[in-house]
Amino acid sequence: MHELRVAVVGLGWFGERHARVYSQLPGARLAAVFDLDATRTKRVAAVTGAEPHADLPGLLSRPDIDAVSICLPDRLHLNAALAAVGAGKAILLEKPLAHDTTSARQIVEAVEARGTRLMVGHILRFDPRYVQVYEAASPEWLGEPIHIRAKRNGVRATAKRLGGASSILFYMGVHDIDAMQWIGRSPITRVYAQKRQALGTGNEDALYAIVNFANGAVGSLDLSWAWPAGLMNGYRASFEIVGTQSAAYLDCADQGFYTVGEEGTVGGDTHLWPEINGRIVGDLADEISHFVEATRTGKPYMQHHREAFAAIPVLDALKESAERGVPVEVRR
Amino acid sequence: MHELRVAVVGLGWFGERHARVYSQLPGARLAAVFDLDATRTKRVAAVTGAEPHADLPGLLSRPDIDAVSICLPDRLHLNAALAAVGAGKAILLEKPLAHDTTSARQIVEAVEARGTRLMVGHILRFDPRYVQVYEAASPEWLGEPIHIRAKRNGVRATAKRLGGASSILFYMGVHDIDAMQWIGRSPITRVYAQKRQALGTGNEDALYAIVNFANGAVGSLDLSWAWPAGLMNGYRASFEIVGTQSAAYLDCADQGFYTVGEEGTVGGDTHLWPEINGRIVGDLADEISHFVEATRTGKPYMQHHREAFAAIPVLDALKESAERGVPVEVRR
Amino acid sequence: MHELRVAVVGLGWFGERHARVYSQLPGARLAAVFDLDATRTKRVAAVTGAEPHADLPGLLSRPDIDAVSICLPDRLHLNAALAAVGAGKAILLEKPLAHDTTSARQIVEAVEARGTRLMVGHILRFDPRYVQVYEAASPEWLGEPIHIRAKRNGVRATAKRLGGASSILFYMGVHDIDAMQWIGRSPITRVYAQKRQALGTGNEDALYAIVNFANGAVGSLDLSWAWPAGLMNGYRASFEIVGTQSAAYLDCADQGFYTVGEEGTVGGDTHLWPEINGRIVGDLADEISHFVEATRTGKPYMQHHREAFAAIPVLDALKESAERGVPVEVRR
Amino acid sequence: MHELRVAVVGLGWFGERHARVYSQLPGARLAAVFDLDATRTKRVAAVTGAEPHADLPGLLSRPDIDAVSICLPDRLHLNAALAAVGAGKAILLEKPLAHDTTSARQIVEAVEARGTRLMVGHILRFDPRYVQVYEAASPEWLGEPIHIRAKRNGVRATAKRLGGASSILFYMGVHDIDAMQWIGRSPITRVYAQKRQALGTGNEDALYAIVNFANGAVGSLDLSWAWPAGLMNGYRASFEIVGTQSAAYLDCADQGFYTVGEEGTVGGDTHLWPEINGRIVGDLADEISHFVEATRTGKPYMQHHREAFAAIPVLDALKESAERGVPVEVRR
Repeated sequence: MHELRVAVVGLGWFGERHARVYSQLPGARLAAVFDLDATRTKRVAAVTGAEPHADLPGLLSRPDIDAVSICLPDRLHLNAALAAVGAGKAILLEKPLAHDTTSARQIVEAVEARGTRLMVGHILRFDPRYVQVYEAASPEWLGEPIHIRAKRNGVRATAKRLGGASSILFYMGVHDIDAMQWIGRSPITRVYAQKRQALGTGNEDALYAIVNFANGAVGSLDLSWAWPAGLMNGYRASFEIVGTQSAAYLDCADQGFYTVGEEGTVGGDTHLWPEINGRIVGDLADEISHFVEATRTGKPYMQHHREAFAAIPVLDALKESAERGVPVEVRR
Repeated sequence: MHELRVAVVGLGWFGERHARVYSQLPGARLAAVFDLDATRTKRVAAVTGAEPHADLPGLLSRPDIDAVSICLPDRLHLNAALAAVGAGKAILLEKPLAHDTTSARQIVEAVEARGTRLMVGHILRFDPRYVQVYEAASPEWLGEPIHIRAKRNGVRATAKRLGGASSILFYMGVHDIDAMQWIGRSPITRVYAQKRQALGTGNEDALYAIVNFANGAVGSLDLSWAWPAGLMNGYRASFEIVGTQSAAYLDCADQGFYTVGEEGTVGGDTHLWPEINGRIVGDLADEISHFVEATRTGKPYMQHHREAFAAIPVLDALKESAERGVPVEVRR
Repeated sequence: MHELRVAVVGLGWFGERHARVYSQLPGARLAAVFDLDATRTKRVAAVTGAEPHADLPGLLSRPDIDAVSICLPDRLHLNAALAAVGAGKAILLEKPLAHDTTSARQIVEAVEARGTRLMVGHILRFDPRYVQVYEAASPEWLGEPIHIRAKRNGVRATAKRLGGASSILFYMGVHDIDAMQWIGRSPITRVYAQKRQALGTGNEDALYAIVNFANGAVGSLDLSWAWPAGLMNGYRASFEIVGTQSAAYLDCADQGFYTVGEEGTVGGDTHLWPEINGRIVGDLADEISHFVEATRTGKPYMQHHREAFAAIPVLDALKESAERGVPVEVRR
Repeated sequence: MHELRVAVVGLGWFGERHARVYSQLPGARLAAVFDLDATRTKRVAAVTGAEPHADLPGLLSRPDIDAVSICLPDRLHLNAALAAVGAGKAILLEKPLAHDTTSARQIVEAVEARGTRLMVGHILRFDPRYVQVYEAASPEWLGEPIHIRAKRNGVRATAKRLGGASSILFYMGVHDIDAMQWIGRSPITRVYAQKRQALGTGNEDALYAIVNFANGAVGSLDLSWAWPAGLMNGYRASFEIVGTQSAAYLDCADQGFYTVGEEGTVGGDTHLWPEINGRIVGDLADEISHFVEATRTGKPYMQHHREAFAAIPVLDALKESAERGVPVEVRR
């Protein structure tokens, strides 16, 4: 098997990390990078040794490139993904798959029509906490799920930074809706949501929702990026599932590492993408490593793209419910 | 000031603890106890030195009794409270005030008509974690509340033990609805709830709700007594409030004390009613001590009975929403 | 039983809290206060309604005063305690009993010669975490103790504030040596200590020690007040005991209450002396309440003064070992 | 660069995991395995696809093998490592380097004489918590170290399983001594230790030590494998360093993942070697991946073998101190 030659498209916070992980992976070679901002393209190219590209079509036309990470803003996913499919590239698409169900459906249908490959960057599928909760929640051990709760809270600076480029549902909620359906082993059929916009970030501050699963379980979703900057570790995520026989939960509040200065006690990331010994390790590195190996060897991705797609109609229903103030059925 | 002479009516788990706390308090004398179960009455009387009574009217007719703790099942609160009011006794009424709004209203109106005193056993008003969150959530520091989350989860054994004698809303939820309106400094106006009954305990297993406050905040309520018996410490409660300026939260998961045997690591209670050095200390003891002192001295109770009443119409609305599957306005 | 009439001598951080607790306790009346600083005396007198005194002999000569809390700096304990004993007062002496074994012995011998009463303010005896570890560590459940670890760490500001008025061993270590001998149910016989003085506070920054118990257990003691000001909750204390059958531990790191602002996440005290609803509650209030009731009723104090005394020779041995750099036998 | 062809020698708990990680790594090919127990050899060979070998010399004589993981009991490290050096193989030697200073010195001198390569499996060098504490403890940020504490506690079943094959110092303590000298950036010069043997496992139950560093810092070491089987997560490790300017710490008690059954709440590993999605990830996988890449590319290992060696004389000194009961100077 030759090295997988990859390109990264979109070099924001996530894209730059994708590029750096590819450049450190033994089975991959980072061949090209592209961002709408040429300065950023040059900087990341210089750091990683990849070739900078000034336009996406030029990059995609290179026959030596096997695969591409797309890390663009949500609303640019559709066109970039269709172009990459058209060029026959394997795609690692940062979440969310797309900014609405219609766009998401277009992408997965194009992939299937063309026979190319697509993996969505659902990083929790590579987090030892979430995967172990998933494994513990097997029907044999858990019994039938009774209730499922998912929480993802961050700081208001993120909402301000993103402005209208994403939304609390598609930026954060997509993780939890995917996790709820995956770990709960059942699709969400009906949702009710209430949101709040008091901070003026151009985004929702918070969104609370209750969901119903096809298997009868009830779910609670707790999304916020209204927390002040001083929130320990910058985010709070947790998940719990209680079944008729037993239960499992995870809580990301304590990452095990702290610094103490005159000003306060501050935590750090030890799971998602910690940089240690000059390398990015943890969930994101494992996700990208899996993408590289599965693409090289032709093995299936950890999550089929249709399973990733299944989160998007739920997000659309949550959006509609939060706007209308009534429960909404999920249309797939 | 003479010692306050008190009686305890209802000697289940809570009533027995009330009796024991009174019997250890310097400003109080436990004069009488009564339970529908005469064996229980005799046992608690023997332990505490109180006089056992075989019927409630006889107990209430004693002119030497100043005050009474009512710790009966929810549905017996109305008659017992009206009788105690009629007898002119100050009342410490274990939560919930009553099992529905109509009954609760009858009790508070009787108290006001007769000019007697009533305190509801909202123990969180005496918990250093909840009170400090309340104090931190002052408008000056917190700004305007954006979102408020309350969680109270317990083990399924409790649901089985209570059977139809109480409900997840009136047994557990009353704590959190009182806390949300108190700490959020605003009444709840609209609710949506979904419940689940899979375990066959004769009670709900879990109830998730979203609520709206008059001040615009949104709230999430997470109630469950579906957890297996092995849940660390037997319960999980947490609360958080995020405002436009800052935020505060509490989490009761870690009580700081653990034992480790061959079978596992087990926690313990260090806040609610720990028994140390042969005495009950913590929140419940502080609550009862406050009731004694405020009754003796004629000072106001920490919480006015009308403020305690305000939780009940919200519980009724939650019950209705969970049954009908639609959002419901709170009628006061 | 009449109310216990008490005085507080020494109105620093602890003394002021003693005064406030007495003034809120039903069975006690705060009759007098005294501090070397007359301004402070007047302020606390005004707050609590006690009579301010300008000198200790005058205060102690009042026949209406039954008991006195002594909250002076360590080195003033001897003379003040002897004077209070001479005046026949019951004494609540803030820890440490005295600043060395000789002084401590003089005090307890004077108490015994005069037939008065003495309780030392070992607050951990009233902490639900420590008491429950003590109770769990019964020989029946724990078996024979194998190893015992105690930690008490604070911030450097405390060391700077105290300067030479106390020491890390007598200010902090006395808690843990008392706890180790109490919970381990055996006296410490031999010690080895190393200390560090790099911060120039006029005190040790840290002291690590290993101790041997008469029953064969080994112990580790970890004292520091070198932490930067930002240490969560301001202190870290933990304790663990592992026996031949089972084990128990406590950790005070998480108090369950947090505030989050722009600058960081900050914890708070929910056990030692939290002020809620305008009152001091928790361990210190329980300790002082016990002193009042036991003194009024003539019942024994939770800890006999000879058991409190037993910590002091260990502290002297630790001091000597840290200075000489060799193991030292404890002389009693 | 061709794939690195590796063999694993010793297929106990660690060796089997080494073999499985190699077999999943893109840059490596697991060519051979060997254990003294032929049944075990065959089983691991079958699982991983490696060729089973019946003797070590035969395995080492294969010219197609580039590198070897040695995962044998401590006392067999010397001969196996010398043989592998003699055969010119790069070595990943599971900790401890050897069971005493003399043996360890022989190994590193043989490596240097022959010009081969050696990496010791100090897994904490790949743990995001320890590495981030190391990075935070830079002189620029931390200032001068004042005190350093390291804890590693496990369950008594481990001690029973190992019997005399290892010791608490060489099995567990080597991690912490390496971490203390690495993060403290200074060698340990003097030690004092006390141990306990009450459980009859053929090993120490616990060992407490105090150490002095060349830079003046004092250290506390807390080792135990006396905990009952029910210890949450099976082990407790923590580390803290307080400097003249600031401080950092880590605590492995909370790994963020829990299951709850009727019997209790049980944690899990999310850092060391969690198996998720059918693969071993985390610290051990990162360590082995680094060994493969650095060996293939000729880059230096994260830790030079002389730095790994530096822990062994400290362990010997601790052993001597625990036996003699006096402080001992470290001889290098």
